[in-house]
Amino acid sequence: MKMIRQLEQARQGLLTREVRSVARKEGLSAETLAEKVAAGQVVLLKHHGQAVGIGAGLRIKVNVNLGTSPDYVDLKLELTKLKTVCRLGADTVMDLSTGGDLKNIRQRILAESQVPVGTVPIYQAAVSAIERKGSVRHMSPDDFFSAIEEQAQEGVAFVTVHCGITLKTVNRLQQQPRTMSVVSRGGVFTICWMLTNERENPLYQHFDRLLEIARKYDLVLSLGDGLRPGGLSDATDACQIEELITLGELVKRAWEQGVQVMVEGPGHLPLNEVAANVLLEKKICYGAPFYVLGPLVTDIAPGYDHITSAIGAAVAGWHGADFICTVSPSEHLSLPTAEDVADGLLAARIAAHAADLARGNPAAWKWNRSMEIARAQRRWAQQENLSLDPEHFHQRRQSFLPSSRGVCTMCGRYCSMKMIQKALAENKK
Amino acid sequence: MKMIRQLEQARQGLLTREVRSVARKEGLSAETLAEKVAAGQVVLLKHHGQAVGIGAGLRIKVNVNLGTSPDYVDLKLELTKLKTVCRLGADTVMDLSTGGDLKNIRQRILAESQVPVGTVPIYQAAVSAIERKGSVRHMSPDDFFSAIEEQAQEGVAFVTVHCGITLKTVNRLQQQPRTMSVVSRGGVFTICWMLTNERENPLYQHFDRLLEIARKYDLVLSLGDGLRPGGLSDATDACQIEELITLGELVKRAWEQGVQVMVEGPGHLPLNEVAANVLLEKKICYGAPFYVLGPLVTDIAPGYDHITSAIGAAVAGWHGADFICTVSPSEHLSLPTAEDVADGLLAARIAAHAADLARGNPAAWKWNRSMEIARAQRRWAQQENLSLDPEHFHQRRQSFLPSSRGVCTMCGRYCSMKMIQKALAENKK
Repeated sequence: MKMIRQLEQARQGLLTREVRSVARKEGLSAETLAEKVAAGQVVLLKHHGQAVGIGAGLRIKVNVNLGTSPDYVDLKLELTKLKTVCRLGADTVMDLSTGGDLKNIRQRILAESQVPVGTVPIYQAAVSAIERKGSVRHMSPDDFFSAIEEQAQEGVAFVTVHCGITLKTVNRLQQQPRTMSVVSRGGVFTICWMLTNERENPLYQHFDRLLEIARKYDLVLSLGDGLRPGGLSDATDACQIEELITLGELVKRAWEQGVQVMVEGPGHLPLNEVAANVLLEKKICYGAPFYVLGPLVTDIAPGYDHITSAIGAAVAGWHGADFICTVSPSEHLSLPTAEDVADGLLAARIAAHAADLARGNPAAWKWNRSMEIARAQRRWAQQENLSLDPEHFHQRRQSFLPSSRGVCTMCGRYCSMKMIQKALAENKK
Repeated sequence: MKMIRQLEQARQGLLTREVRSVARKEGLSAETLAEKVAAGQVVLLKHHGQAVGIGAGLRIKVNVNLGTSPDYVDLKLELTKLKTVCRLGADTVMDLSTGGDLKNIRQRILAESQVPVGTVPIYQAAVSAIERKGSVRHMSPDDFFSAIEEQAQEGVAFVTVHCGITLKTVNRLQQQPRTMSVVSRGGVFTICWMLTNERENPLYQHFDRLLEIARKYDLVLSLGDGLRPGGLSDATDACQIEELITLGELVKRAWEQGVQVMVEGPGHLPLNEVAANVLLEKKICYGAPFYVLGPLVTDIAPGYDHITSAIGAAVAGWHGADFICTVSPSEHLSLPTAEDVADGLLAARIAAHAADLARGNPAAWKWNRSMEIARAQRRWAQQENLSLDPEHFHQRRQSFLPSSRGVCTMCGRYCSMKMIQKALAENKK
């Protein structure tokens, strides 16, 4: 079977099946979408014959992270999380497992997921080196690449690759310590390897080798921000922006080889720095799609970081971020439960929708208008159907039933909407 | 006992006990705070000998609405809510009861509250007219004022008064219907009265009479936005802004009479209209403190409106809003439970803190830095103490204990912070 490379097809003006289906879902013409793909502004992620588009002019998409940890390996729980988030509207998932039989877990998630699956292949390479040889130091440069190729072959749609970490940035980190240092696990594995081996990052040094693999499988590269701030005090610092500049250079090289690419971003940012971070990514990385983790806009609310990150994500999306990674309420505390990932996803979807509205997305406005009208007319069943989480809506309303069906228990017979409609109707001019 | 009017004292350069205590809490000099009070940029709310300051240059404050409805009258529940939100850091509460013995409920809340209490006196006037005489129509103009005076006398610190609704705005509403019409209960009671009696709003027409009462008790007026948008489609429309212009005129008149005043705002706003709404209030109302309800930045997430409103509140606060009204997850669905008001309050406090950070509040940054350092050093007990909700932090961590005390179950032994610290220490240059 010949590999169809979306970027190359789009450049030739050919409308692939994926371009046509995504264009239909987004309410764009296939030609317009193909132009965006050709320009690198949109990437197409594929899974089981379906495609999801991420980038400028499209609905903002939401990813959910799944995966085991060394302390907690429960494949059944991870598959429950997967099922839950697919039902609640996740656009993609990432398997970030670091405990148990990583290959088996990944293959089960790939088989059962209804949405494209991403991974961070260095986890497998590093965990394997630690388990078999006692230290991340014993990875070979080949190990970096073989994990990526193995996962691409299995059907992973996109991979986070920390290509922007160089000896220069590691040196900067040693000279100018940060409050939170490095919080990206993939970034830390890479830096530990570089420090102990005193060698350059293979994914940077041999980036062309990575591009060959990506070309072979039309694998979308998500250029990871290994030096993303882990606390507000480290936000938008030289470490972070120096890495972003490197990523911008790599975006160009990926495009030259016909490889689809997006760029990852913070992390933790004060609210007033969010817009600048989006601007920087869009300028420095030539409009490549921006994939943000949060950003969390305060550090003082562990247990509620789905909310701190929804605030940041809404503002980031409004200013142009294209892809939001869900942060669950368990962030900074523990591995999330199924309920945690659900709560995180709903918060991220709220952020994405608020940003879509702010960006003037017509489908987002149509949905919102329908809800406003159903609410004004106090049509409760319709409101339930239109709500982000109809089951939750139903349970809440059932648990506190009003005396009259047309209102709710907040105001009862003093329902403002009911009273004003009656008064205006009776006193028409 | 002579009534001390904060605004008049401040204008004379006198430093009241309240100014001194609020200045200390805010980390300002008493002189600086008195200047802000004198300029009307800050109001002081009093309760049981304590004071809370709201306005420019101060920490953003958070209010929680309590109160019964005709469908659900449970004083014990309301007092439980009160206790819960005082413990979780509410700066003020409002008693919005419309069911049961309103006077008794209010007096119990006033007695047991640890924070200043606000009310919407027209609720009592309207509910009484409906219960005793069958319709809101039968309120007399005197009823509008006597409810306010009664509550001021009882010790209410601030009242929402819908003075900006005029026959002109009611006419506009009839000529240019909105999607959600009017959603403010106080606004609707007022408009119903005006329509059925074909008379001007007494609180507008006889605003000086209201100012006399406010002067007598040094009652802070919170000028209500009866025409605040109830859905995104009605946001920032002529109805809303026309009322705001009237409120700006009334702010000036209040100041002329030595009366402290703040202005209420939306409501429901698309994210990209939030900053403009804050700007408009600050310009049109001469810098009077801005009290926002949300704003909710999407209408499609009933059951999660503590999150939709936290997004809007954070952005509003960052741009200059001073006072945030909590929206609970039960908004648009039912009267809130104690758990609902707690969840709403925590989301609003997150928004306020994120906005304080964005505005450069030194105390907010000190708190955040302490948490970052505790987290970087993986001091879990310290993180718990510093967190917004230590009890919740504790429960979450206990429910999912890691294999090693220094990490969490998210990454276990692959804790990025632990690994990078070790690697950097062992490979010092």
